[in-house]
Amino acid sequence: MSDTQLNHSTDKVAGTSPSEVRLKAAAAGQAARLMAARTTEEKNAALVAMANALNAEAASLIAANQEDLERGRENGTSESLLDRLMLNEERIASIAEALRLVADLPDPTGNVVETIERPNGLRIEKVSVPLGVIGIVYEARPNVTVDAAALCLKTGNAVVLRGGSAALSTNKRIAQVLRGALAQTTLPPDALQVIEDASRASVDEMLKLNGLLDVIIPRGGRSLIDNVVRNATVPVIETGAGVCHTYIDASADAAMAEAIALNAKVQRPSVCNSMETLIVHEDFAKRGLRPLADSLLSRSVELRGDERTLALVAEAKPASEEDYATEYNDYILNIKIVDNLDEAAAHIARFGTKHSECIVTENEEQAVRFLNEIDAAAVYHNASTRFTDGFEFGFGAEIGISTQKLHARGPMGLPALTSTKYRIYGSGQIRG
Amino acid sequence: MSDTQLNHSTDKVAGTSPSEVRLKAAAAGQAARLMAARTTEEKNAALVAMANALNAEAASLIAANQEDLERGRENGTSESLLDRLMLNEERIASIAEALRLVADLPDPTGNVVETIERPNGLRIEKVSVPLGVIGIVYEARPNVTVDAAALCLKTGNAVVLRGGSAALSTNKRIAQVLRGALAQTTLPPDALQVIEDASRASVDEMLKLNGLLDVIIPRGGRSLIDNVVRNATVPVIETGAGVCHTYIDASADAAMAEAIALNAKVQRPSVCNSMETLIVHEDFAKRGLRPLADSLLSRSVELRGDERTLALVAEAKPASEEDYATEYNDYILNIKIVDNLDEAAAHIARFGTKHSECIVTENEEQAVRFLNEIDAAAVYHNASTRFTDGFEFGFGAEIGISTQKLHARGPMGLPALTSTKYRIYGSGQIRG
Repeated sequence: MSDTQLNHSTDKVAGTSPSEVRLKAAAAGQAARLMAARTTEEKNAALVAMANALNAEAASLIAANQEDLERGRENGTSESLLDRLMLNEERIASIAEALRLVADLPDPTGNVVETIERPNGLRIEKVSVPLGVIGIVYEARPNVTVDAAALCLKTGNAVVLRGGSAALSTNKRIAQVLRGALAQTTLPPDALQVIEDASRASVDEMLKLNGLLDVIIPRGGRSLIDNVVRNATVPVIETGAGVCHTYIDASADAAMAEAIALNAKVQRPSVCNSMETLIVHEDFAKRGLRPLADSLLSRSVELRGDERTLALVAEAKPASEEDYATEYNDYILNIKIVDNLDEAAAHIARFGTKHSECIVTENEEQAVRFLNEIDAAAVYHNASTRFTDGFEFGFGAEIGISTQKLHARGPMGLPALTSTKYRIYGSGQIRG
Repeated sequence: MSDTQLNHSTDKVAGTSPSEVRLKAAAAGQAARLMAARTTEEKNAALVAMANALNAEAASLIAANQEDLERGRENGTSESLLDRLMLNEERIASIAEALRLVADLPDPTGNVVETIERPNGLRIEKVSVPLGVIGIVYEARPNVTVDAAALCLKTGNAVVLRGGSAALSTNKRIAQVLRGALAQTTLPPDALQVIEDASRASVDEMLKLNGLLDVIIPRGGRSLIDNVVRNATVPVIETGAGVCHTYIDASADAAMAEAIALNAKVQRPSVCNSMETLIVHEDFAKRGLRPLADSLLSRSVELRGDERTLALVAEAKPASEEDYATEYNDYILNIKIVDNLDEAAAHIARFGTKHSECIVTENEEQAVRFLNEIDAAAVYHNASTRFTDGFEFGFGAEIGISTQKLHARGPMGLPALTSTKYRIYGSGQIRG
């Protein structure tokens, strides 16, 4: 099986040599065919070998990381970004430990998920299989390089990783260490590819690599994801943006409503499952908005509201249409007062991103309506939207949170990195 | 819930009025929210009402169809295309009957497919839900208009149908009849939209309608599908192309091999699951290729082969690389002789489209290897590739055959038109 799978990919210009991206994707494609035949035990042993190699090579990883940090400081990178980029012994140990946890998870491939017996004697099995070659386009944090590689290899896939230029030295060293570890196992090192071309061109090329990449998953900020969604011809799993709402119904328990709203806003405002807009039923607003607003203000949350909110909360600024559509990822919250669930649902349909939405209510009928009628990956009754997360859902891993409806929706664990195939067993059947 | 969902869609130019495509997609979006709340009984009753309306309006449908046929004749459309376009009483009755059969199928929405109980008391239910608004871009046959509408409505979706200009009069009349039928039921007529703008611009606009369309499914020939895959920013389910192989192993039963190969090639050469290339093990070729070739030649199949084939079958022409990559959909067959399974698998990996692949063998070990190692939507042991079909798989319906690995792979029945959402039931849980 030595031929390269170049036939479906975009046209090559005669005489030019293949790019780094194309060569590495093709090598990953070869490796993917070998990966699909590896046992769970072989894959797990490789993950443990990768973890051990990270521990053993901590010093050289930190040295490579220093190059990135120095370049970042010269370029005026912010301290918070530098912190995300930074590796130390403790972080490397934690990344290695995460690899061992992935090794302990069940293998989602090779399961017969459906068997069909046909009257003509055909037996049809639907079996879970790896996707093939997965492209990941992401930004600075080097732990994503290891995490994504681990999840893709665990599921029998090959992976082509294109991280941000800020972490290039670190990512190159990680690739050397992990590929070196794979070379000592039965898994092909070519199943793990790190693109070193830090130009925009390498991303653009990946997005069009139909036939060589089976799927692309973007991980990062809005502009990175939008670029992938707008320009990819390879199938994409969109992850990301969350303009999440919490709706406090008339009958809500005030203490519960406050606890959930505070948690959704301030426990970690920078993430996609945090709340951007609080919607409050008029009846609750009259009795409960003022103390709730005080509680939010005491946590340094800037409030923006509609006219009815401003009448009750003088500290709030007016909220614009643009505010309602914005994922702040910050200590800012919109508040809107409504007359009923229909009005809340219409606001969510208009401004939400179909990520995570919550109703706080003691009224069962309102809860059922909200959970059924709101179109989002995760809909909550009396719990914080911050739970939309692969680990919190008990998946043991998370490759991202899908905000699209195809293939995977919401937190994606290992099964999101698989496809299926039909195996059909016959005894000479032909179609009449 | 009266707001339109325009916020995620592509930018509008201030002052211009919305296009037909945008208006109809937005109306479908409103209807989709109502559709998701309709019961199985309501949806089935609407499908029967639609079937009855088609029967009752046969004369007006045939009259509209005549306009398309006359325009087609004036434009020099081929007889075979005119035949695909043509409606008569019998065909309309058959289309209406298909609607009733869809009504009888199980509803794939509203099923709790997984329940997770978390240590913190959260109960997480994964439930099947409609996709939302489905765009279908297709070509001439007007039965697709009815079929696709029925499958989308059955699964609680709204649908925006953009058929070929050749069938425009017919499709407009079908839309009037079916929407009129829906108006007599509890389903919103706006759940069924037919785009009348027959220009390329209306397709281009649909492909970029993120936020208004949840998915686009192309149905038609290679160029239609390629245009959708290359240009859509809305998620796509790719259907279509099949360069399918049958591999006759050394140990194959000669009579079975002949029956399967003939069936895969000549039973209906024009469809995607028919065979384009026959791969033959050298040992079988020596004893069985000559009579098999005679059998194919007697059915008017033109043979093209590699050098080893030409030495055994003088009637064959040389096969080029391009031949091996071509979906003939015709009475033409490539033949290639190989030394072993690895060589066959390498050829399939290089030239196949991951649609349907078959091994004919009495050797169990070779069969297992083929079924595991060949990367295709459907892999067969001792049965014709012609069975790759939703009806033959027992799904009772088929929206197409997916050749991608995301979301759905192979024949797509009703479940392929659903997504999932997570419903989370709490009692005040917040994240620590």
